[in-house]
Formats: sequence, C-alpha cells, structure tokens
Amino acid sequence: MKPLIIGIAGGTGSGKTTLVDRLKEQFGEDISVLAHDSYYAEHHDLSLEERRALNYDHPAAFDTDRMIQDLENLKAGKTVQVPVYDYTVHDRLEQTQEIAPNKVILVEGILIFDNKALRDLLDIKLFVDTDADVRILRRIHRDVTERGRTLDTVMEQYLKTVKPMHEQFVEPSKRYADLIIPEGGKNTVALMMIMQRIAYHIEHGDIVSRQ
Amino acid sequence: MKPLIIGIAGGTGSGKTTLVDRLKEQFGEDISVLAHDSYYAEHHDLSLEERRALNYDHPAAFDTDRMIQDLENLKAGKTVQVPVYDYTVHDRLEQTQEIAPNKVILVEGILIFDNKALRDLLDIKLFVDTDADVRILRRIHRDVTERGRTLDTVMEQYLKTVKPMHEQFVEPSKRYADLIIPEGGKNTVALMMIMQRIAYHIEHGDIVSRQ
Repeated sequence: MKPLIIGIAGGTGSGKTTLVDRLKEQFGEDISVLAHDSYYAEHHDLSLEERRALNYDHPAAFDTDRMIQDLENLKAGKTVQVPVYDYTVHDRLEQTQEIAPNKVILVEGILIFDNKALRDLLDIKLFVDTDADVRILRRIHRDVTERGRTLDTVMEQYLKTVKPMHEQFVEPSKRYADLIIPEGGKNTVALMMIMQRIAYHIEHGDIVSRQ
Repeated sequence: MKPLIIGIAGGTGSGKTTLVDRLKEQFGEDISVLAHDSYYAEHHDLSLEERRALNYDHPAAFDTDRMIQDLENLKAGKTVQVPVYDYTVHDRLEQTQEIAPNKVILVEGILIFDNKALRDLLDIKLFVDTDADVRILRRIHRDVTERGRTLDTVMEQYLKTVKPMHEQFVEPSKRYADLIIPEGGKNTVALMMIMQRIAYHIEHGDIVSRQ
C-alpha cells in the first residue's frame, strides 16, 4: 500500500505535538512520525558554546536533504535509519532510530513547508495556526517548567531567532498548506476530519476519487 | 438522523460557491443549502434608488434571526419556507422556497460566523480563505462578465462597503473557524477531506467518537 504522507507544520507552541500525539493514540502502529528536529545538522567540529549560539530556527540548521531521502525511501517501502539529536549537547548522536515503512507517515516540523522538494512528497499539508501570544506562553511553559531553562534565556532566544525566523520562513510557508487548523490538537472538529481521512486510507488505501 | 450542519464562510470571491457546488455534485439529494443571501432583509418601504444605496455587506443587512429559526426547524426535522431575494430589484419576493430536513445542511455566506447564535448551530465551521487581490478579480469577472455591471460600479461598491465590511466583520470571524481552507473549491486535498467527513455522516450518522 502506498503510504499516506501528512505534513504538519506551524510555529513553536502552535499545537503540532498535541495533534501528532492524538493521531498516534488513535492509530498506534499504523502511523510513523518523522520529525524535522531529528535532522538538525551535526556539528562535531564546534564547541558546546559555539553550538549553543547557532540559529536553530533557520532552514539551514537542518539536514533536510537527508530527511527527503529517508522519506523517499519510506515511500518506496524501505526501512530507514533516522538520526538522533541530543538537545542537551546540541549535537547529533552516533546512534540512529530505525523506522520501517508504514501506512501513514506524519512529517512534523516548523519549517517543513519551506522546502519545495519536501513539500512535493506530502499528500496532505496541514498548518497548525495559533496566535503568537498563546504560542510564546506555551513555549515558556514548556522550556521553563519542563526543560528547566530560565525565563531570560527563553525570552532572549525567542526575540533573537525564533520570532524573526517565524516571520521570515514559517508564516510565509502557510501559503502552501492544504488546510489550516486553528489551535491544533485541541480542535476536535478538525481532529475528527483528519482522523476520518486517515481511517479511510488505512481501510481502503489510496484509491480515492478526486474531483 | 441528526443532520450534519456545515457552515461555509469567507469573503466575496473566496471560492465558497465552488466548494458548495462540488459538494452538491458529489452528494446530490443528501445535501440542502441555506444561503445567508436569501435572508437579506425586505425593504418594501424604500424606493429602488434607496434600496440600491443600502450597505449589503453589513450584518444588519440580513434577517439572520429568521435564518436561525429556519435552521433550528430543519434540525428538528421540520420543513421550512426560505425567503427568495431578487437582486435585480434589491428586495425580497412574496414567494418562498420550500426546504425539507436533510442529512447534511450547508449554511453559506460571508457573515455567518459573525453571529454567535448561528455559529452555535454549526457542527463544522469552514472558512474559505483567499487573497484579497484574487477575490476582487473574481468579483469583477462575475459582476462585469456574468451580471452585466460596469467596472466603475463594481469598484465603487467594493471600496465603499465590501472591503471595509470584510475587514470589520468577515476577516475577524475567521477566528471561529474549525478549519481554514485556502482557495476553496479548487483545493482538492481539502475537498476530499470534507467529502469523506460528509460521506461518513451519511453512512454512519452522528455516532463518531470525539477525542
């Protein structure tokens, strides 16, 4: 069966992860997730201090070509070795995570619609759209409460790279979305429609009449 | 069976009608359409000249209470008499159009998300979102080519009421949408998801697990 490849983009704190989690809960083994963050470029040549100072919100921070290759291989029915990124040291680890071909593949990340070759591999492009003030509140909550970072660090990074990169790359890439989902995984009406689309694919495959 | 009530909003020329037409083609008799435009208020007391000068893009131009009542009746399984509006004389006619209860009811109009009581009756709220420049081009094409109006009249009305009312009422009501559909009926990926949602309802009724 040809996999259904669904791209889920949207800014930091938009609700992408909640949406992905809901879909994984619902469809379990029939879904594999490919996160753009796993493909952060490796920087073995830089010091930790230098790696900390990099702009992680620019498209060039990612090894997107490798992600495209992995996605093409998954589409062709081949198992792939996805890189593993370690946020604590800001670098790629030697180990990889094996991902097998599946009925449904979710491709997730803030910048996945910025790259045309990647966009062209996606059957459905969803953009989770949430107000910037709500997004920064969620990011603060996540980074301060869950990841033990200071408010000052979060603010500095947000204003220095997250916000300008969002405005330069993420927001304009919304234009490529097939569907824009306000508020992500908490939007039950949208969630139900996406689930029915996926359920249909799992049950019937890709033989759907297009108007 | 409880009907599935789908609201389709979006600015002039956004692609609402194309979307409604595609759904009607696909589901035929199982779909009824309630257009907000049918509920333009009656103005038997005004002259044609005065009626021509009215602002038809403001929420107050509509008899939305009657539309809400009709929708509630349809939901309760009762047949309703929908008013018929004549654009050539800018007034409501004496005749009505009978609409019977149905499995799926599409509620369509630029301002349907502006009214809370109306919004609350909608199971799914879709907002068709298209750039303003594309929308005005479509409107010019429709009004000049198909309705025989002059370019000057179209421009004047657009700048005087259509655009300011869009910015004041239509655009802010996008906030209430469950799903935002770029480019409306020409967006085949979105169209397919909406069709599968409707097909599911027609086949299984409203017994859908919500997360």
